Amino acid sequence: MTAERLLVIGADAGGMTAASQARRRVPAAELEIVAVDRGRYASYSACGIPYWVGGAVRSVDDLITRTLAEFAKQDIDVRLGTEAVGLDLAAGTVTVRDADGEHRLGFDQLVLGTGAVPVRPDIPGADAPGVYGVQTLDDGAAVLAALPDARRAVVVGGGYIGLEMAEAFVQHGLAVTVVEAGPQPMSQLDPDMGALVGDAVEGMGITLLRGERVTAIATGGDGRARAVVTTEREIPADLVLLGLGVRPNTALAADAGIEVGATGGIVTDARMRTASHPQVWAAGDCVQTVHRVSLAPVYVPLGTHANKQGRVAGINIGGGYATFPGVVGTAVTKICHLEVARTGLREVDADRAGLRWVATTVESTTRAGYFPGAKPITTKLIAEKRSGRLLGAQIVGEEGAAKRIDVLATALWNEMTVEELSGLDLSYAPPFAPVWDPVLIAARKSWDAVELDVQADYSSQS
Amino acid sequence: MTAERLLVIGADAGGMTAASQARRRVPAAELEIVAVDRGRYASYSACGIPYWVGGAVRSVDDLITRTLAEFAKQDIDVRLGTEAVGLDLAAGTVTVRDADGEHRLGFDQLVLGTGAVPVRPDIPGADAPGVYGVQTLDDGAAVLAALPDARRAVVVGGGYIGLEMAEAFVQHGLAVTVVEAGPQPMSQLDPDMGALVGDAVEGMGITLLRGERVTAIATGGDGRARAVVTTEREIPADLVLLGLGVRPNTALAADAGIEVGATGGIVTDARMRTASHPQVWAAGDCVQTVHRVSLAPVYVPLGTHANKQGRVAGINIGGGYATFPGVVGTAVTKICHLEVARTGLREVDADRAGLRWVATTVESTTRAGYFPGAKPITTKLIAEKRSGRLLGAQIVGEEGAAKRIDVLATALWNEMTVEELSGLDLSYAPPFAPVWDPVLIAARKSWDAVELDVQADYSSQS
Repeated sequence: MTAERLLVIGADAGGMTAASQARRRVPAAELEIVAVDRGRYASYSACGIPYWVGGAVRSVDDLITRTLAEFAKQDIDVRLGTEAVGLDLAAGTVTVRDADGEHRLGFDQLVLGTGAVPVRPDIPGADAPGVYGVQTLDDGAAVLAALPDARRAVVVGGGYIGLEMAEAFVQHGLAVTVVEAGPQPMSQLDPDMGALVGDAVEGMGITLLRGERVTAIATGGDGRARAVVTTEREIPADLVLLGLGVRPNTALAADAGIEVGATGGIVTDARMRTASHPQVWAAGDCVQTVHRVSLAPVYVPLGTHANKQGRVAGINIGGGYATFPGVVGTAVTKICHLEVARTGLREVDADRAGLRWVATTVESTTRAGYFPGAKPITTKLIAEKRSGRLLGAQIVGEEGAAKRIDVLATALWNEMTVEELSGLDLSYAPPFAPVWDPVLIAARKSWDAVELDVQADYSSQS
Repeated sequence: MTAERLLVIGADAGGMTAASQARRRVPAAELEIVAVDRGRYASYSACGIPYWVGGAVRSVDDLITRTLAEFAKQDIDVRLGTEAVGLDLAAGTVTVRDADGEHRLGFDQLVLGTGAVPVRPDIPGADAPGVYGVQTLDDGAAVLAALPDARRAVVVGGGYIGLEMAEAFVQHGLAVTVVEAGPQPMSQLDPDMGALVGDAVEGMGITLLRGERVTAIATGGDGRARAVVTTEREIPADLVLLGLGVRPNTALAADAGIEVGATGGIVTDARMRTASHPQVWAAGDCVQTVHRVSLAPVYVPLGTHANKQGRVAGINIGGGYATFPGVVGTAVTKICHLEVARTGLREVDADRAGLRWVATTVESTTRAGYFPGAKPITTKLIAEKRSGRLLGAQIVGEEGAAKRIDVLATALWNEMTVEELSGLDLSYAPPFAPVWDPVLIAARKSWDAVELDVQADYSSQS
């Protein structure tokens, strides 16, 4: 018996976790595993790049989660600098390009772990030197190399990555401007909660421009970016950072006829098998998944999902059984002293899902009010009208605030109502929470609001 | 129409929350509310006493959650220094003793919020001067007054309160010995997890004696405690602290024929009405409740439950509808740099409940391993054999560890299996968690252990 071959395209979280899991179940004599990646690194934490640039993480090596030697020990053959340029499903081959030119690799099973690419706005100058993305370690290295000569940085987009990078630039002493097209930064939150983040960003000395669209990146005589042009003004820049998020990298898959969904991500079943081809699997930032609250397809590129999906794909490829259960849209970040978290649906998402909702926001403290280190925490809950089912939650606060989102994510997962939520047995001691945890207070007030709303409906009918 | 009277016995969390909630729904013209308490304070945070003694909380006033003036504004008549000494259900009266002697107060509705009393061991010298409990603010003040003359403190009992007080004494520079009868301190955890706490306690310079029972408290010529005598030795002490926990204060209720359960707490229904008398309600540290995992009656004196139960009682008394849904046994504390948390059943509890279980313990970090401030966290899960249903969880770790217990408490509440738990969409970013949150790693390993256990069962049968 000759060994079958598992080919993995993209040697990061999704693909390499799949490879490792498959190897755990099937020895090299039965399954050869080859992973190709056009980049210079395998298995790294892209989420750590802003902290590397900012200086909190000292060395790029710290961001590399597994080395090539570790993969080699597992009999996983990782080929870097090797780009997959063609996929022939009928023939079962992938065309790769490396230093020796192009050649074909056959496969019995294929994992698409092609990840994401930064969104580049369709404006003049977007590709000019001096304009950076933050997707790969090479991107991070390029930004770090540019810092010593830069005094002024402009960040396009005030989402997670944009604000994390803006903070990193402040730590290097740069004058930083963030240009956000929406009414508030952090559009992953409702605008009222995003406003709290905006205040903190301005408090760091960052110039925050709200409701301004970038129309061009102006270049100098040397072709390098020299300013960001918006609908309102021109902002001189020695360094321009694109923080507009990412989109799934699916060109290879789509060209081969693999189904891509409404979100732009590859469509898979719960076992991470593509909808189009039984031997082709996909995991990580290139796939779409399902939102367990709206039940709609969503695209949520996040390392934690990539790892879970890769694990599921690898178990199934290795002859086991596992499923990825979807997401509820949980995310967290830290901007200066502010912790920011969200899960579930925003107001606008609930509207899109055709749900009627009641929003409630409460302010509290992270510890007993009298305990040293008690910090402010603002919790917003969105509950369905009448039923009181929790639909979404957002938290903005200081130290100790954000991780509370996990309770709300778990509540969403279990389709709890805010009334049920208010009865939860959450931990209490003065160094950790007030006697009513902020989550419980928010749940109580949310249920009160649901009841008042019902009464108002009846009154208006009479 | 003359106003009815709501009488509340015990002016702390359970009773006063009931009073406030009833008042919100019924004006003073219809409902007179009188609360009596034998002590000098109403509505205070007993959980804060160790931090007041230790110095983290500066003033006793910080521990008083609501003042008499605030209650007066709500038309709630709080009478301190007034002890309830008799209850006549048939007559609908309570006999109280105050500075003016004894008299009777009639009631239409009665709330028993009589709280708890410290467990005093039945040994010689237990009541001697120099032996302190930690239940009331007066207790705290007495300990504080004793500190300047004390060099050596002995704490009897290594549970939450015992260890919190031991740490407070260390902060005052005392030489501290903790005597624990069990194999490890913190018997609210399994011994393997308690051992981690024991190591930290010894690391603080505290002498920890395990497996030693206290047989007497020796007194000097002045009648004051001068040493703690154990099965092994005699330990000189200038100050003895009883940290043996509390028991429900139910003498008044039991004498009147109100049903007291197997745990010693007053039995109520989910609306907090006593099982014995429709006009008598009870809330807080004097009641027993139901454990949602074992479905057994349990006694869990904790401020957060007292507040919830009082609120439920008050809403029902005021003509509304609310229920207290029981507990899952969540608790948290901080011992020096160590955070300790638990929820659900320990191994011994699962045995008692007749459940067969598999325990799994994993070590991880509170943040991404490469992120500054990443601290160790040990997570133990107990899952039911075969089904994989989560039964209990324990966490011991450093900064950022303990509040993760709330996710596990929420999972218990929803009867999740550890397999389901491992799929949860928990928040991830390097400052807050590794890409696999410790809870997810623990859940995955726990499910692996459940599956291996099933296989072992089959193998042993063949």
